[in-house]
Amino acid sequence: MDVLAELTGSVGSIGYGLAAIGPGIGVGIVWAAYIQATARQPESAGLTRTYAFLGFALSEALALIGFVVPFVYGT
Amino acid sequence: MDVLAELTGSVGSIGYGLAAIGPGIGVGIVWAAYIQATARQPESAGLTRTYAFLGFALSEALALIGFVVPFVYGT
Amino acid sequence: MDVLAELTGSVGSIGYGLAAIGPGIGVGIVWAAYIQATARQPESAGLTRTYAFLGFALSEALALIGFVVPFVYGT
Repeated sequence: MDVLAELTGSVGSIGYGLAAIGPGIGVGIVWAAYIQATARQPESAGLTRTYAFLGFALSEALALIGFVVPFVYGT
Repeated sequence: MDVLAELTGSVGSIGYGLAAIGPGIGVGIVWAAYIQATARQPESAGLTRTYAFLGFALSEALALIGFVVPFVYGT
Repeated sequence: MDVLAELTGSVGSIGYGLAAIGPGIGVGIVWAAYIQATARQPESAGLTRTYAFLGFALSEALALIGFVVPFVYGT
């Protein structure tokens, strides 16, 4: 019986892949809300733009942290 | 039987990746709610801003705990 | 038989990561509901604040239990 498992690579790739799931959805939710809010109340576009970019950045940051995490724990 | 698995890295990366899924979505939901609430009732922006940042911080904290967890359990 | 796996770390990290998915989303949903309810009926803010914090705590508790679980089962 020969079992030749030749998996290679670092599990850090899996880690980043998982870390990108949530922010991928979260960023979409934020911009979807901004689009709908702006379409209904165009005069609110300037008021809520700050929070659209803020929410996007804070959600996206979680995926970017997942990018550097393997270097922290050992690649 | 030869099993030559050349996987490298720490499973802590997978742990963080999983821990970032929920907060990534949760943060997006919180800011989406704040954007829509502010667009409809601009006068409520000051009243609800506290809770937007509170909800964001409490959700994001779960991902940040996932960042330090591998150090607690052993990298 | 040669097993050359260079993976390190504890699967407790994966456990916590999974445990944080639900609460990360749940906490975001609770605060999103409170933000929108407060924006529409500002006079209800005091009445519903108790339940916002209650819902947040009960959801977050699941992730914090996931943090101590590896110590219970063996790290």
